[in-house]
Amino acid sequence: MENFVLHTPTKILFGRDQIANLRDEIPPQARVLITYGGGSIKRNGVLDQVHAALHGRHVFEFGGIEPNPHYETLMQAVEMVHNEKIDYLLAVGGGSVIDGTKFIAAAADYVGDPWHIMETVGSDVTRAIPMGVVLTLPATGSEMNMGAVITRSATGDKLHFMSPFVMPRFAVLDPQVTYTLPPRQIANGVVDAFVHIVEQYLTYPVDARVQDRFAEGLLQTLIEEGPRALQEPENYGVRANIMWCATMALNGLIGAGVPQDWSTHMLGHELTAMHGLDHAQTLAIVLPNVLQLKRDKKHTKLLQYAERVWNIHSGSDEQRIDAAIDATRAFFEQMGVKTRLSDYGLDGSTIPALLDKLQEHRMTALGEHGDITLEQSRQIYHAAR
Amino acid sequence: MENFVLHTPTKILFGRDQIANLRDEIPPQARVLITYGGGSIKRNGVLDQVHAALHGRHVFEFGGIEPNPHYETLMQAVEMVHNEKIDYLLAVGGGSVIDGTKFIAAAADYVGDPWHIMETVGSDVTRAIPMGVVLTLPATGSEMNMGAVITRSATGDKLHFMSPFVMPRFAVLDPQVTYTLPPRQIANGVVDAFVHIVEQYLTYPVDARVQDRFAEGLLQTLIEEGPRALQEPENYGVRANIMWCATMALNGLIGAGVPQDWSTHMLGHELTAMHGLDHAQTLAIVLPNVLQLKRDKKHTKLLQYAERVWNIHSGSDEQRIDAAIDATRAFFEQMGVKTRLSDYGLDGSTIPALLDKLQEHRMTALGEHGDITLEQSRQIYHAAR
Repeated sequence: MENFVLHTPTKILFGRDQIANLRDEIPPQARVLITYGGGSIKRNGVLDQVHAALHGRHVFEFGGIEPNPHYETLMQAVEMVHNEKIDYLLAVGGGSVIDGTKFIAAAADYVGDPWHIMETVGSDVTRAIPMGVVLTLPATGSEMNMGAVITRSATGDKLHFMSPFVMPRFAVLDPQVTYTLPPRQIANGVVDAFVHIVEQYLTYPVDARVQDRFAEGLLQTLIEEGPRALQEPENYGVRANIMWCATMALNGLIGAGVPQDWSTHMLGHELTAMHGLDHAQTLAIVLPNVLQLKRDKKHTKLLQYAERVWNIHSGSDEQRIDAAIDATRAFFEQMGVKTRLSDYGLDGSTIPALLDKLQEHRMTALGEHGDITLEQSRQIYHAAR
Repeated sequence: MENFVLHTPTKILFGRDQIANLRDEIPPQARVLITYGGGSIKRNGVLDQVHAALHGRHVFEFGGIEPNPHYETLMQAVEMVHNEKIDYLLAVGGGSVIDGTKFIAAAADYVGDPWHIMETVGSDVTRAIPMGVVLTLPATGSEMNMGAVITRSATGDKLHFMSPFVMPRFAVLDPQVTYTLPPRQIANGVVDAFVHIVEQYLTYPVDARVQDRFAEGLLQTLIEEGPRALQEPENYGVRANIMWCATMALNGLIGAGVPQDWSTHMLGHELTAMHGLDHAQTLAIVLPNVLQLKRDKKHTKLLQYAERVWNIHSGSDEQRIDAAIDATRAFFEQMGVKTRLSDYGLDGSTIPALLDKLQEHRMTALGEHGDITLEQSRQIYHAAR
């Protein structure tokens, strides 16, 4: 096991009707800005629950944060924070709203051009407005970590930053609020969480038995509960298990002290930025081909994954690895998330342009060994057609 | 899954030579009291490492905190905190030192008779001196939770309290410092952690799949690594896995949203208080008999435990449950921790006195259903002879 530092101070309020309890988590005199996305929280009653919990407080609203939140939109919120003297942010939504709110939190207190936060990956953020979360879509894990991904629509750049100052103070996770999500969003969330886990697990062994078993337990749970979430949208237990998996998938716990391989996310980000594919769709397209290309370097962990996660016990090493990769792809397809570029009307003709973007973003040495070069990325995109 | 609140803000610094980094976790101007136990940290160099990390700071020492820390001893430290205007506590040791330091932290800022903290189980603690931890013995999980067990030697009372104000701000976990532990202490630590996990897992199902799989993963890891820790005391990987298991066993994670059964600890505490047995010895004595007596109420989870933790797949339900309980007992014995009262020279003649103490401490409705009455506790002690 490698050395690590783990610090996850976000207070989790999990379960039925927990939104009412957020009142106790925000200082009484705070000037609170509620941030949200396209307005589904108005239709499903979540925004009403939030307002009821904050009755009598100083509350403002900023809606319209889009999927893959845009820098340009978020800067409007920063202006509102300054004008209204906001001192607490409450993100009500999924990963895009939470990520966007993290950027607002950092940018509002930042000296200089806020885009510099992205260019320095958050390293010079020294403070931020405190924020809380009401999660409506289990997927990205952003509710309990310090990362965020932001897109600049003018250039198509999709970059991430990290800072402990934007770690949410609290997060409310009520599985009931996910009942009304469209199947596509639930499926995307399950695939996103699944890939987060794989990216921290499927590298090479460092004898980190707790982290491995936690990762395997989360993957098994998603495999069991993901399809049920589509079939039984109001099954509380299923939604609760998925919601908790997604948070645990990316709060630092399973990634502590182990090598990581975020190449699937990096290659996927360029597909979203250039072609507008859903984030999870890009992951489902890229991951099986990363595993195929790197099967030798990932040999030992792929065999462990085959055995412990998929119960694949027969056949040669190579056959069991193939079966595990096939099972991964089949799981994504079972969730309704297609796994080929051609499924989305893409023929691979933009691969050179995608590689240019990877180079521009300095994504030229990806993977746990830093050996996924631009040429290997080309092979991965090519195999994904 | 039941509703839960989970808040574990303790920052973990895990790995080789992390003690040096505690310098950055304590405010530069703090007046720090280092608390410790019998002095092994002087012999193995840990105290020197701590002093080196705090070179140039205001540092004081309080040694002599005993196993099952005594109220009377801790009150001497409270006096020292007042006299020396201490404003940061650094516990360097195992569970007893950490628990004792939590009590010092709360008692030093407490208005009224500090024993009242124990009688009210910490409910009226409203502040405490901040504290950090350098863990030397993986076992109790106290380094990342808000609980502590204190003994009043004058009366033999062993009580616990809990307060978020005594949650350590940080904990340094360097597996290397455990190399020199006596085998008995490592064995006790593994058994203690194992029983913590079982007490949060072996109740009845609430479809909490993540918590179940995390618990099973920790149990499997202890089963694999516990005996190796005795055979290969300087195997870093083994010590690292055990250390991380013990912390994860009782930091709230696997117990979030699930029923719990702390009867083994409660019955064990009385054995330690009356007869001076090691804490883990009492757990090894009590647990198998709790599982036997409550096998009907725990039926479903016992079968899951048999299958997933012990790979027991054949035989009738009752045979598989017997095999799982037998395997649990055999594991404790394999670790060198005996599982019968008679192994410790006890014949059961003090059972009436133990029951009197349970009654005095209001431990008359234990277990996940509150149905372990004094009569059932008598049966458990009786079966453990």
